[in-house]
Amino acid sequence: MARITILTDFGTRDGYVGAMKGVLATRAPLAVVEDISHEVPPGDVRKASLALGRYWKLYPPGTVHLVVVDPGVGTDRRALAMEADGRFFVAPDNGVLSEVLAQASTWHCVAARASEELPPPTSRTFHGRDLFAPMAAHLAMGTLPQTLGEEIVDPHRLPDVVPRETAGWIEGRIVEVDRFGNLATNLPEGPVRGVGSLEVAGETIPFHETYGEVASGELLALLDSEGRVEIAVRDGSAAGRLESGIGDRVRVRTR
Amino acid sequence: MARITILTDFGTRDGYVGAMKGVLATRAPLAVVEDISHEVPPGDVRKASLALGRYWKLYPPGTVHLVVVDPGVGTDRRALAMEADGRFFVAPDNGVLSEVLAQASTWHCVAARASEELPPPTSRTFHGRDLFAPMAAHLAMGTLPQTLGEEIVDPHRLPDVVPRETAGWIEGRIVEVDRFGNLATNLPEGPVRGVGSLEVAGETIPFHETYGEVASGELLALLDSEGRVEIAVRDGSAAGRLESGIGDRVRVRTR
Amino acid sequence: MARITILTDFGTRDGYVGAMKGVLATRAPLAVVEDISHEVPPGDVRKASLALGRYWKLYPPGTVHLVVVDPGVGTDRRALAMEADGRFFVAPDNGVLSEVLAQASTWHCVAARASEELPPPTSRTFHGRDLFAPMAAHLAMGTLPQTLGEEIVDPHRLPDVVPRETAGWIEGRIVEVDRFGNLATNLPEGPVRGVGSLEVAGETIPFHETYGEVASGELLALLDSEGRVEIAVRDGSAAGRLESGIGDRVRVRTR
Repeated sequence: MARITILTDFGTRDGYVGAMKGVLATRAPLAVVEDISHEVPPGDVRKASLALGRYWKLYPPGTVHLVVVDPGVGTDRRALAMEADGRFFVAPDNGVLSEVLAQASTWHCVAARASEELPPPTSRTFHGRDLFAPMAAHLAMGTLPQTLGEEIVDPHRLPDVVPRETAGWIEGRIVEVDRFGNLATNLPEGPVRGVGSLEVAGETIPFHETYGEVASGELLALLDSEGRVEIAVRDGSAAGRLESGIGDRVRVRTR
Repeated sequence: MARITILTDFGTRDGYVGAMKGVLATRAPLAVVEDISHEVPPGDVRKASLALGRYWKLYPPGTVHLVVVDPGVGTDRRALAMEADGRFFVAPDNGVLSEVLAQASTWHCVAARASEELPPPTSRTFHGRDLFAPMAAHLAMGTLPQTLGEEIVDPHRLPDVVPRETAGWIEGRIVEVDRFGNLATNLPEGPVRGVGSLEVAGETIPFHETYGEVASGELLALLDSEGRVEIAVRDGSAAGRLESGIGDRVRVRTR
Repeated sequence: MARITILTDFGTRDGYVGAMKGVLATRAPLAVVEDISHEVPPGDVRKASLALGRYWKLYPPGTVHLVVVDPGVGTDRRALAMEADGRFFVAPDNGVLSEVLAQASTWHCVAARASEELPPPTSRTFHGRDLFAPMAAHLAMGTLPQTLGEEIVDPHRLPDVVPRETAGWIEGRIVEVDRFGNLATNLPEGPVRGVGSLEVAGETIPFHETYGEVASGELLALLDSEGRVEIAVRDGSAAGRLESGIGDRVRVRTR
């Protein structure tokens, strides 16, 4: 059974998401369409990449993940159709697939090319309706990505999706601040296993398993639900306490 | 396959949309139900009409579009079931179908009448659950609109959905201001083709194909993704610059 | 046909709801999944209980209602699988099922127990993905609740879900304040039928059938769309006028 998920920054009230869904209903009438979110902050490609990174692989193989967070609409940025570990993706080539590219074992990616099946967009501003939804419908109906364009090996990747390793250190970044002021990093569990603390903004912060292991108001590092390092203050805001934000460095000494 | 879309101003957190969907699940169990939005500004009939105008016809014939933006609930405003160009509509008679009526080639509309199949609403305040959802379920199950009531020829229409033509001029209106301050108008592409400029708020504004054709801070008119005239300032707000808003006049000289 | 509804306080933009839906798509691939809301105020168990109370029984028997508003995640609060009047429920044991328990004719409830089919959560913070979604998928695929754990008879109930009766009085509470300042109570229609007024915050407020029966600015009590008593000010805010809020007492003299 074909399944298409949709992630956008359109909001819903103007009917633009409705237009995309109408195109899907007409061109892939039997596909199940699931909203992920239309409330990505406008143009926030990194946020969309992180969100996609949390759900893409939990869906069964064959699922088509349609992502339209596209601040470059109207420029000549490429439109991508990708297969990664059995799931399909349709998205602008702006880094929004970075997390998938970092997590996937294998991937193949094409840049869309106008053709009889894929006519050029009729608008300059609404490629979600005119280009990306038709591409997703094609994939849901069984068209292979390579039919839609030329294979490419250089899809755009955001910086700092994976941490850097140097002699004795792994250096990551803060990639997200949630509404409680918790700081998500790009440090995965593996390299930090057995390490006692990390460094951020001049402070050394101990690792713990749960919030409950520190007193109220104390800083701690722990693993989030994705198995990545998070920095928090029990009953408080790590962002406020450390005056840190997205892009700031986080270091772990590995020997 | 039956398909029902839903557009409301209910928000989702109180469970009212859930109640409508529960009614649909019980009465039209095989229909596919798709959310368009529940975040229409409360009571904003024009906004809902514009949103509906963007997606209704992209869905395949047979789709039932359910729209519950109903500031007049509890008064004696009529409840409508309509067919237009092969799609079906259920909505209060308050103008929310204006865009569809303006765009459709043919339409037939009935005002609902209580019957054995369509009992009167049990609440005075929640016709979405008690009246409109049951009507949509009937249509999705194959009931014809004319079975649900009396044919009418005067569904309520909002003013200024289509522009007025006078000797030598077409006069439209600003119908929407988006979050960037762009001004959407009700002027379609056809009559303004080949025209070099329009007039609004005492200013003459040139037509261009893209934002890129004017300097940052310059006013321009261009076609939006629906093929209608939009007024914008590159990298700025046309609403702020012109001190214009919904309802203001926009004129184009046609000879 | 299996159907699963989802109610959470996650918001949608971070991809956590997407993760839950991915688990459902993989484990119950033929189930229809319907969003109710992901915009419950964070941790607001009473609000979620009231929302659920408005839709659960309008869905057909067999529907699985998944509710993840779970401020106690990571503590040892129980995870529940319940059947009530033919519908199924999966939720944390924090009172979120209170309205259903008050409305249902019969119910059976189990506290989940880790097993081969239901492995313990891999994260400490995301039981929506690791525990509740798998439980909902099991129920949608036909697993009986009693297979998932031990029967219990004491699911957590919020206080003041049903009013108290004393000699000559029924005493309820304000349970919700909507965005217009209307005060929802837990008083059902039955016991107040034929009663002329109620008392709240030292004021005696007359019952009416509709807003239209009082002058603008006047206080009134009336039945809401659920058949419960609501206190309102025509064209105004009852919450502001009475300086009342959630938990305040509402009394009706019954003899």
